[in-house]
This record gives sequence, C-alpha cells and structure tokens, in this order.
Amino acid sequence: MVPHLVTALTGPINELEQRILDSMPPIERWFRLEWMEHTPLFYTSVDVRNAGFKLAPVSNNLFPGGWNNLTPAMLPLAVQAAMAAIEKICPEARNLLIIPQNQAHSMAYWQNLAQLRSIFRMAGLNVCMGSISPDIKQSTTMELPGGESITLEPVVRSQYRLGAKHFDPCTILLNHDLQTGVPGILEDLHEQYLLPPLHAASSVRLKSTYLRCYEEVVKRFGKLIGVDAWLMNPLWDTLPLVNVDIATDQDRLRDAVDAMLTKVRKRYKEYGIKEKAFVVLKADNHDRSFRAMAVRDAKELGPVWERLRAAQKAAFGEPLTLVLQEGVHTHERVNDAVAEPVVYLMDRYVVGGFYRVLTAQDQEGPVVDPHANFVPLAFADSTQLPQPGMAPGASAPNRFYMYGVVARLAMLAAAYELEATDPQAEHYE
Amino acid sequence: MVPHLVTALTGPINELEQRILDSMPPIERWFRLEWMEHTPLFYTSVDVRNAGFKLAPVSNNLFPGGWNNLTPAMLPLAVQAAMAAIEKICPEARNLLIIPQNQAHSMAYWQNLAQLRSIFRMAGLNVCMGSISPDIKQSTTMELPGGESITLEPVVRSQYRLGAKHFDPCTILLNHDLQTGVPGILEDLHEQYLLPPLHAASSVRLKSTYLRCYEEVVKRFGKLIGVDAWLMNPLWDTLPLVNVDIATDQDRLRDAVDAMLTKVRKRYKEYGIKEKAFVVLKADNHDRSFRAMAVRDAKELGPVWERLRAAQKAAFGEPLTLVLQEGVHTHERVNDAVAEPVVYLMDRYVVGGFYRVLTAQDQEGPVVDPHANFVPLAFADSTQLPQPGMAPGASAPNRFYMYGVVARLAMLAAAYELEATDPQAEHYE
Repeated sequence: MVPHLVTALTGPINELEQRILDSMPPIERWFRLEWMEHTPLFYTSVDVRNAGFKLAPVSNNLFPGGWNNLTPAMLPLAVQAAMAAIEKICPEARNLLIIPQNQAHSMAYWQNLAQLRSIFRMAGLNVCMGSISPDIKQSTTMELPGGESITLEPVVRSQYRLGAKHFDPCTILLNHDLQTGVPGILEDLHEQYLLPPLHAASSVRLKSTYLRCYEEVVKRFGKLIGVDAWLMNPLWDTLPLVNVDIATDQDRLRDAVDAMLTKVRKRYKEYGIKEKAFVVLKADNHDRSFRAMAVRDAKELGPVWERLRAAQKAAFGEPLTLVLQEGVHTHERVNDAVAEPVVYLMDRYVVGGFYRVLTAQDQEGPVVDPHANFVPLAFADSTQLPQPGMAPGASAPNRFYMYGVVARLAMLAAAYELEATDPQAEHYE
Repeated sequence: MVPHLVTALTGPINELEQRILDSMPPIERWFRLEWMEHTPLFYTSVDVRNAGFKLAPVSNNLFPGGWNNLTPAMLPLAVQAAMAAIEKICPEARNLLIIPQNQAHSMAYWQNLAQLRSIFRMAGLNVCMGSISPDIKQSTTMELPGGESITLEPVVRSQYRLGAKHFDPCTILLNHDLQTGVPGILEDLHEQYLLPPLHAASSVRLKSTYLRCYEEVVKRFGKLIGVDAWLMNPLWDTLPLVNVDIATDQDRLRDAVDAMLTKVRKRYKEYGIKEKAFVVLKADNHDRSFRAMAVRDAKELGPVWERLRAAQKAAFGEPLTLVLQEGVHTHERVNDAVAEPVVYLMDRYVVGGFYRVLTAQDQEGPVVDPHANFVPLAFADSTQLPQPGMAPGASAPNRFYMYGVVARLAMLAAAYELEATDPQAEHYE
C-alpha cells in the first residue's frame, strides 16, 4: 500500500515531479559530478515532508537507526552500496566495530543492529558491536525473535586504537549520535577510520550551518532542472542569541516571526495555496532543552517565551541562538493517519525507505515531531525505478524517485557542512 | 520456483556450498582486493553448470544479451552497479552509444536493448543505439509490446570519434560480440571509451588463455576457502595444431582424450561419484565451424574426425588448435527439463540471473550447447542475501550466492585474460 496525498494531485508538486523525471539523466550526472568533489556520508537517513505543493527534507540523521524497517527486497541494494562504500574507504578492511547508542534498550534498536550486522557481513566484513556505555562492563547478549542474537562487547581502548576483546577493527562505525558530547574514548584514533567523523556529532552540529549548505545545494539544483528552489527549500532565518529577559530581543523574535509568516503567505498566494502558513522555532544547536515549536501568529508567542525561559535557565542564563523556519505541512496519509517518508542512503546510493505512520496523536495541527509514536510501513516500490510517461502524482515509483532525489540533496548538503566544519581541513580563503 | 538437483543433496557440492557460506566475509574481502589490482569487465553474463557434485562456469559472455530476462526486482541493483561503473570510467559521462548485434532481428533481443537503455538512463546517461550493420542506412524503429520502441541509428564515423546523427557519445558500449572480426569503423577511437575493449572480441579470444587465467584464479580461491579447486574447475588441456590428415596427430588427440577420461574417472572414484565421465572438444579460437563435441570413449572418435575434417577444409587446410575439457554434467531440473543458471554481472557486482530451461531437446546425453532452445526463468531470490545457518543444498538464496561467487571467479579470470592480451599494455618480464 502506498500513502496518498490529501491535497488534490495537481499543482506545483506534480510539476516538480514531472521536471525531476524529465531531467533524470542530467540529475544523475549532476550528483555524479558532485560526488567527485564532495565525499558522501557513509550512511544517512533523511525525513522528507510532502506538503502536496512543496517537498522538504525536514531532518537528516548521520547515525541512522531503523535499518530493520527496510524490506528484504531493499537489502541487496544496501549490501551492494556498502561494498562500494567500503571499497572507497578501506579496501583492505576486515573488521568493523559498530558503536551502538548507549541507551540501546529496545527490541527495535537491537533489530536495527542485527540488520546492520548482516549488511556489513554480506559486504565482506567481520562485525562486532562495541558499546561505549558505562553500563556495559562485559559481553551482554540480547536474544531476538527468530533465534538471532546481538552481543554488545565493552570497548577496549589502547593509546591510538579502539576495539573489543580479540577484535581489532580498521574501521569504526558510529550508530551513536553523541548527543551529549564527544567522549574522550573516541578521540585521537589516528590509526583507524572513524565514521562519520566526530564533528558530525549531534552535540556540535548547528542547524544554521546545514541550512546554509542546503540552500546552496538546492539553489543550484533548482537552476539545473528549472524550478523554483522554494519548492524544495523552506524559508529560514537565524536569530542569534535571543535573551528572553530582554524586551528588544523579544521584539526581534516577534518581528522575525511576523516577517517570515508574511513571506510565506506571499508565496502561498503566488502559487494559489489555500493552507494556513506557520513557522517553526528551533534551537540552532541540538540542545534538547528547547524542543521545536510551531507558531501560526506573531501575537501568540506566550508558550514560546515560557519554553525559551526554561531553556535559558537550563543553560545557566546563556541566551539561545534560534532558527526560524517556514513550517512544512505533511499531507500524506495512510488510512487517515499521517505518513512521513524516511529515505535511507548508504554512501551515495538511495537503498530504500519507509513511511512513519503516526499513531495516536493529534494530527490536526502541524506535525513538528513525527518521531513520537509511529509504525513503519516500507516503501512498496523501489526508489530507483521511475516510470517515465506516467501522469505526475499517479506513480508510486516516481514519487519515491523524487523523495530519493530530495534525500540526496539533503545528504549532499550535510557533506558540504562537514567539509565546512572539519577541524582538520585547511581553509584557503 | 527454484530448480532442484536430480542428484541427492549430499556430497561435495554441499560441502562447497557450506565452505563458501562460512567464508563469506573473507571471500568478499578477497574479491575487493582483487578489484584493486584488476579491472572488472564492464558487464558480463556467466553460464554456470551444476553437476550436483561439482560446479563450473561453462561460458562467459563479455557482450551479454538477455538483460530483458532480469526481473524488475533485480533492476535497481543493475542501475546502482551501472552508476558505480560509470563513475569509475568517466564521471563526466553524458551520452552512451550502445552498438547492438548486426543480426538484431528478434523481439527478445530488442527487449534486451530496451532493458539496457533503461538501466543506463536511470544511471544518468542519454542512450542511443548505433548500429554498425550495413543494413541500417537510416533510423529504423521497432515497436515493442507495451508501447515502447527501439530505434537503431546508423553510426557516423569521423576521424577519431564514433557517434550517430546529433549524438556524440563519450562512451561506446559493445553489445555486439564481433564474432566475425573487428570492423575498421571501431578502430582508432582514441578520444572515446570503448567497452569492452576490442581485444575482448570473440574473434580474437582464445579459450586456452581464459582457461589458464581461470585456473590461476580458482587455485588461489580454493586455497582461501580450503577446498579442492577441481570442484569448481574442470580439467582441461590444449592440443596445438591438430591436422586431421596426419596419423600421428590423430593418435595425439586419441591419447589426450584417453588420458583425460582416465584422470576424470580417477577423480570420480576419489569422490565416490557414479556418473559416466565424458570430455568435450572445442576449437581454441571462437571459430564456429568446429562446434563443441562430447566424447565418452577414445575409441569412438569417428564423428570427431568428420567434423574436424570439415572445419579444417573451411580453414583452407590449416590445422586447428583444440581445447579438451572435462565435461560437466548438468543436473538441475525444472519439471524434468534441464535448467542451467546464467548469472549477470555489471562491473564487479552480481545483479541477478535466470535459468535457461531447455525445451524440446534430448536431455539424456551431456548438454554441450544449452543455447539451442530455452525459456528463461528468473532466479526467485537474490544472489546477495545468503542465509547462514540453513542446511547446505536446502536454501535457494545460498545456492544463488554460490553461483554468484563462481560467476565472479569467471569474470575475474576474464579480467586477467584481457590484461594478458592487451595490445596496449607494457609487459615487464
């Protein structure tokens, strides 16, 4: 089953789909040339939101879980992509250490680890799960349904290397987003490949850096296929250091919200879109003390001040830098439940995806955090086999191809971002 | 449906399957290292024969047709592999010229071309079919069932480039095996990539060169996984310049057949195999005037002399160099019909395969030319997702994985062969 759009299947999203399909060879060539200049992330998942009239990657995860949600039909692609990725990084590779999340307490997450283990085993690597959690002091085995099991080994650190007992990897893969900071045990591993690099840690990334890169990528892409980049790129702005206790800072935020809403409404009018505009406020860093908030009116900022005050307090009075983004409605539905596509990439290749079908949640308002409660629904068709000649909006493979293109734009932007923030890089300016 | 082996599911083939499965990561790593030193063929199909007690690649095609027999589920793998292949050869590639067979008169062959066209379009190339047949003097369009069509364009040659009207490719892909020799129109194309290279032409390859390379490859592989290389490698010998009119040459051939049969029977005895041994005689070159013949007894060479005499006459009296090979029984059956697996590779990746199910033919004797009459039956499962822990011989994915490994050994051997026969190569000895 494939989710449908609640909005009518006409309008800008179909024009975008048509342009993307018509431009397939130039698009693939364009990516090919980009990957000559920029290194793709080792693996990524990208949440895409389809508003029916526009499309946007709303988050990218450089330490993706959820691999267990891919269907068996998608696995060969993941294996083949993993082979290509490994060949490029370290063709001699024999042993791979995967570092899972510290809070690896759910069956779904263990199944994710088991799926990653089979992908890399089939790509020709011995795989060991090495936990950096202080709770894992000895081999800890979890049984999975179906007879498989996952064993977490405590990592063993020597001066320049990280491994596990009897396991010396040449490559270390983080499936741990380092949300609370980069632990010392992962630093100075100069003899091993650590993927993704430490400056990809959630604790150090800034949304504004990524958004700036995405804007650059999508502008050039829009030019390539001749469409308004706005159709794939929500408007955004940064508000540096907003101190909620200072009246002029409150004014600054209120004005910014108002200006952004006005801009969005103007765009909606241009395209004949009847939806109600909204904006989303987020912390620029990945600090979870200020969770994303949707705002529909600059006059209704009461809850924002409240949450901002709490976050500022948690940061010992330090003012927060905020990112203000055009909100993107989500208009895909499976049986009236909100369905948000998630696209999985291994190296430069889109290997599959699934829908997060939201359960038991107020689906009236704009969805800000779709991770709350969901059941996965794998894409019914490949993301790689568009069907030229089908009416726009009528073909699931064509829609999945479009999602795959947007997900690759997001991953490319993350690659730009990591280049820009690489502490090892030499910058010539 | 998956074909079954007529022979009991015990014995050496299952040990081989088990060893191959157990050694999956080292096998994949071994291939990875080989591809660092040797360039994989751009695309290949390999016929594998399963005797129930041994396995052998019986032919490899460097200009494979039959892509239309791959299922939609296999296509994404082919597209992804094509992306990887193109990226390595010419990342800037925009236009690809495919040169079809001159005798492109069957619907199946046009469908093969259409499939190749979609694979490469989805990998990001504009594709044109440029015929070098003297019969194609203008654009010629063939309608396919389902509304698609294939247009053959006459090629246009300039001093250093080959293309078609309004189509200037950077890469030229041969789907034409150049059986009758390399035409001048394909020579001296120094500004373009021509794949596979001209010395891969059927008219210039020698079976003995390939077999020598395969022997080298499979010996090292056998060592890697700890099995007798004979289980994947039929015995073989070359008989240089056999003049059928000279009695001592006849004796030489008779002795060689006898010696080979004795060797094969000895091996059969070692492994407790009850089958009747046979050998196959082929011309070393790809001359079709001497077609492969099966021989079960050195005393029954009457038909061989007859066919040899005819071939020698066709070659204006020149004696033929023959290759003598241990015959490999084919013991896979679908509904009592012989089923021979064919594995498809794009670059270093196994992307799929199908069974040639032989129809209306005497299936009692050893099959020598399985191409005669067949219906294709696509592999029901992936070649990339072996199922560790399954009993040997009981799992179709495991069997397909094994076929994929053997097919890659054959392709690797062809890569060695093309290196050895490259007229441009500098040989340091």
